[in-house]
Amino acid sequence: MIRWRIDLAYDGTAFHGWAEQPGLRTVQGELERWLPQVLRLDQPVRLTVAGRTDAGVHADAQVCHVDLPDEVDTSSLLHRLRRVLADDIAIRSITAAPEGFDARFSALWRRYRYRIWDDASVRTPTRRHQVAPAKGTLDVAAMQTAADLLRGLRDFAAFCKPRDGATTIRTLRRVAVERDEQGQVDTVLVADAFCHSMVRSVMGALVAIGQHRRGLAWLEEVLTLDRRASDITVMPARGLTLEAVGYPADTDLAERAEQSRRHREPTELVEGAEIEVPDELTDGVRLEDL
Amino acid sequence: MIRWRIDLAYDGTAFHGWAEQPGLRTVQGELERWLPQVLRLDQPVRLTVAGRTDAGVHADAQVCHVDLPDEVDTSSLLHRLRRVLADDIAIRSITAAPEGFDARFSALWRRYRYRIWDDASVRTPTRRHQVAPAKGTLDVAAMQTAADLLRGLRDFAAFCKPRDGATTIRTLRRVAVERDEQGQVDTVLVADAFCHSMVRSVMGALVAIGQHRRGLAWLEEVLTLDRRASDITVMPARGLTLEAVGYPADTDLAERAEQSRRHREPTELVEGAEIEVPDELTDGVRLEDL
Repeated sequence: MIRWRIDLAYDGTAFHGWAEQPGLRTVQGELERWLPQVLRLDQPVRLTVAGRTDAGVHADAQVCHVDLPDEVDTSSLLHRLRRVLADDIAIRSITAAPEGFDARFSALWRRYRYRIWDDASVRTPTRRHQVAPAKGTLDVAAMQTAADLLRGLRDFAAFCKPRDGATTIRTLRRVAVERDEQGQVDTVLVADAFCHSMVRSVMGALVAIGQHRRGLAWLEEVLTLDRRASDITVMPARGLTLEAVGYPADTDLAERAEQSRRHREPTELVEGAEIEVPDELTDGVRLEDL
Repeated sequence: MIRWRIDLAYDGTAFHGWAEQPGLRTVQGELERWLPQVLRLDQPVRLTVAGRTDAGVHADAQVCHVDLPDEVDTSSLLHRLRRVLADDIAIRSITAAPEGFDARFSALWRRYRYRIWDDASVRTPTRRHQVAPAKGTLDVAAMQTAADLLRGLRDFAAFCKPRDGATTIRTLRRVAVERDEQGQVDTVLVADAFCHSMVRSVMGALVAIGQHRRGLAWLEEVLTLDRRASDITVMPARGLTLEAVGYPADTDLAERAEQSRRHREPTELVEGAEIEVPDELTDGVRLEDL
């Protein structure tokens, strides 16, 4: 078998998310339907993805991998796939993956962007399917202060839809809230990985604080919960875009995958414990540039 | 009557253009339907627009005006209108227009952007409704050389769908073709005004040159035509966005409107004639910054 890395982008509007679901149009479903056809394979293929995006969530730079038998003719696979896929999926590249590469477990970090229009935003209708509305005028400084509380290695159980046997411990490396020159409020979030619904729940909490409906004391309370908070709004999917996935140097891919697999198992969080975070996450890319 | 200036943006995808057409959804049609309703007027209103965009063309910054009887209660008109309009129109502001203002005739310039993806572009599916595809890899330097030939005061008959009694003489002030860091080819065009289908026809000519299907000699030939060229492709509407409309200082609005009305009437182009083009077009805005 040869492992292939596929880089792609999609408009999530007309997809029921990444993950294959019988009878529903999903990104994984489309790819797993078309790959065997264009390759003339008589067996199904199975994709592994870096970020399992929910229904309606977009991706500017998603990464997945697929293992194909050595003898399959993959010449011009990129062009054959582009010809059959609808125009809401764009395949960027298909390359033989380096030794040890795993789209999901080798990843060092994922970066998401959440876009909001409030009363102070200039709304550009052509962008509306990638932006969520919020009432009032958000206090961006208060949101950033709250965001700073969330950073670091911690149990994000309060923000996660529970999944059996999956840990909710994550390292949130960066949360930067900024209002751009058009008044749009963009939040960039970088973590080793995000649990299910985590970004949209974190955004719900930040918006509540930005609207002065909640204060920092409430957020501190939420952070102590060991299960999902009942009073956090999950923000709409359309505001969310997966923007980038970072991998280590080729020589570290296998070790990183092994490390990730260990950390995703239920882990007891040791108070004050420090996960090993190299200052330079990916070759030449520094955390502050993510 | 009081004249109101309305600044707005729209996603052209689901509109049959700006201009009212019976039985079809148009931007003007929507506004002329809703304005009397939210104002409780028993007479129809009529809008005048800066840029009559075609079906499928977008506007990030369109300007129109409407005359309303003095006694109409326009308080919170902005909010009332926003509440009823679909989310593919965004009303940015409604303000009492200064003396002499005419959305169409007072305008000094219009700026459009045309976006293209070719084989060298990274395609972002969420943006696909605002970008047109082109085959091959465009030679941007050749397109810019051709664009430079088009600049100035000239008869653009070759690029215009004829309209009875309307001149096709325009001053094309700026045509800048650039490939951005994602490989998208953006062309910015600024003119005093554009005749019908002009931007999309100019783009068709530039793309033919960028694909090396046509040369500069052909374009020079086209420029001598006094009627529409038969061998220019009109590029798709979705790549086109009206980005800005410029007006002179309030004190010059009426004079500018008078001057425009004269120039739009059939005019014989005097070879080498120079239209008066102030270096500074709008208060503080210089041509090279448009």
